[in-house]
Amino acid sequence: MRNLLLKISYDGKRYHGWQIQQNAVTVQEVFQDALKNILGIQPDLKGCSRTDTGVHAYEYCISMKLEHSIPEKRLVAALNHFLPTDIAVYSCEQAADDFHARYSCTGKEYLYKLWNHRIRDPFLDGYAHHYWYALNEEQLNEAAQYYIGCHDFTSFCTLDQRRAGDMVRCVTNARVERQGDMVLFTVSADGFLYNMVRIMVGTLLRVAQRKFKPDDIPLIIKAKNRKLAGPTAPSCGLYLNRVFY
Amino acid sequence: MRNLLLKISYDGKRYHGWQIQQNAVTVQEVFQDALKNILGIQPDLKGCSRTDTGVHAYEYCISMKLEHSIPEKRLVAALNHFLPTDIAVYSCEQAADDFHARYSCTGKEYLYKLWNHRIRDPFLDGYAHHYWYALNEEQLNEAAQYYIGCHDFTSFCTLDQRRAGDMVRCVTNARVERQGDMVLFTVSADGFLYNMVRIMVGTLLRVAQRKFKPDDIPLIIKAKNRKLAGPTAPSCGLYLNRVFY
Repeated sequence: MRNLLLKISYDGKRYHGWQIQQNAVTVQEVFQDALKNILGIQPDLKGCSRTDTGVHAYEYCISMKLEHSIPEKRLVAALNHFLPTDIAVYSCEQAADDFHARYSCTGKEYLYKLWNHRIRDPFLDGYAHHYWYALNEEQLNEAAQYYIGCHDFTSFCTLDQRRAGDMVRCVTNARVERQGDMVLFTVSADGFLYNMVRIMVGTLLRVAQRKFKPDDIPLIIKAKNRKLAGPTAPSCGLYLNRVFY
Repeated sequence: MRNLLLKISYDGKRYHGWQIQQNAVTVQEVFQDALKNILGIQPDLKGCSRTDTGVHAYEYCISMKLEHSIPEKRLVAALNHFLPTDIAVYSCEQAADDFHARYSCTGKEYLYKLWNHRIRDPFLDGYAHHYWYALNEEQLNEAAQYYIGCHDFTSFCTLDQRRAGDMVRCVTNARVERQGDMVLFTVSADGFLYNMVRIMVGTLLRVAQRKFKPDDIPLIIKAKNRKLAGPTAPSCGLYLNRVFY
């Protein structure tokens, strides 16, 4: 039996995230349906992360054990034929027997897009958060540096009893840069808590609004109190950008 | 009474073009509805061009005569509030009394996007034509140069009795360039016939497929026969890019 690693990309606008749930369309569900059409079976899919409703993925990884003998290249072509056009499969390769898309993951990089223009861009509806007040990317980048390091990120996590546990995550890189009217926040870590990137962004926007100073961030982290951080920024600006193994 | 010029942008994916028609949602209709909500009246809107179902606009111009005294800046803000998020109004300014968005137009620039990668991009579904075979942008650019000049473009026009008339258009610029996996065709002219840009693209793709040579294009133009040109490329890749007055 092969253990396969699939790399995909998807536009999350019409999906309730990756993980199957009742009464809502998810990426996992349409992926399983496509496999059912192609192979006649529904292998157990392991996704590299949940991801919220409306969140996008430039790179998302799936592992699955497969008895079927279909060649990897043919599986990619067949999936791209049967999947909806807002999902694409880039590659499929054999992985070690014990490889698991989620548990073998050593880190991830997320990207958050802020459309910083007085007027919305019709082509970015659902693909960036429209923030029309001035953003000073250098100041935000200075603030973002305080996220780097191994910290208890309780202040940057939406409480969810089901996911309680170790709240320490090691952020290896965080930066804010401007590309024209788009301001991008990129952050890498060994793992992320629930809503962590979106709360990081909401907190950076509080800095932009002069409600926080950049060096308030270490104090907010230290306090381990969700109420002290900024609000959760909308999901539409968030992209899973890279997955590390 | 003011004569106003409005500049807008819209994602055409869910619209049947600009012009009002029965049983289909058009940009003109939702624009009129927004004005009705704001002003209580529906001014007569003059759009700079029709545009087909699914065609996008980075810049689109509308003129309208208005008795109402609403300041221009407030009208922009109100329209952006009432319009759907796939349409945005960038500016509103007073124009000369005899200005007409369509008849005063001296030229337009269109852009056509070809996503030239083996695998589709989920974020470009409806926003670029996915063409997975090799494209040599230098060869296509060479072919595109033959479009430049004042020609009878009958071969590049879908027959439509209602729009018969002078078939001569003066193309002032035409070029093909590559930006990574995206190949862009840009063309400017004093006016365009029905489906003209899409047939120009379909003909360039015939060159890419070695069914035509670049220097077949002047012969196709000279023949004034639609059947000799390539097929009409899909509307999703087409963007009205600039409007000249």
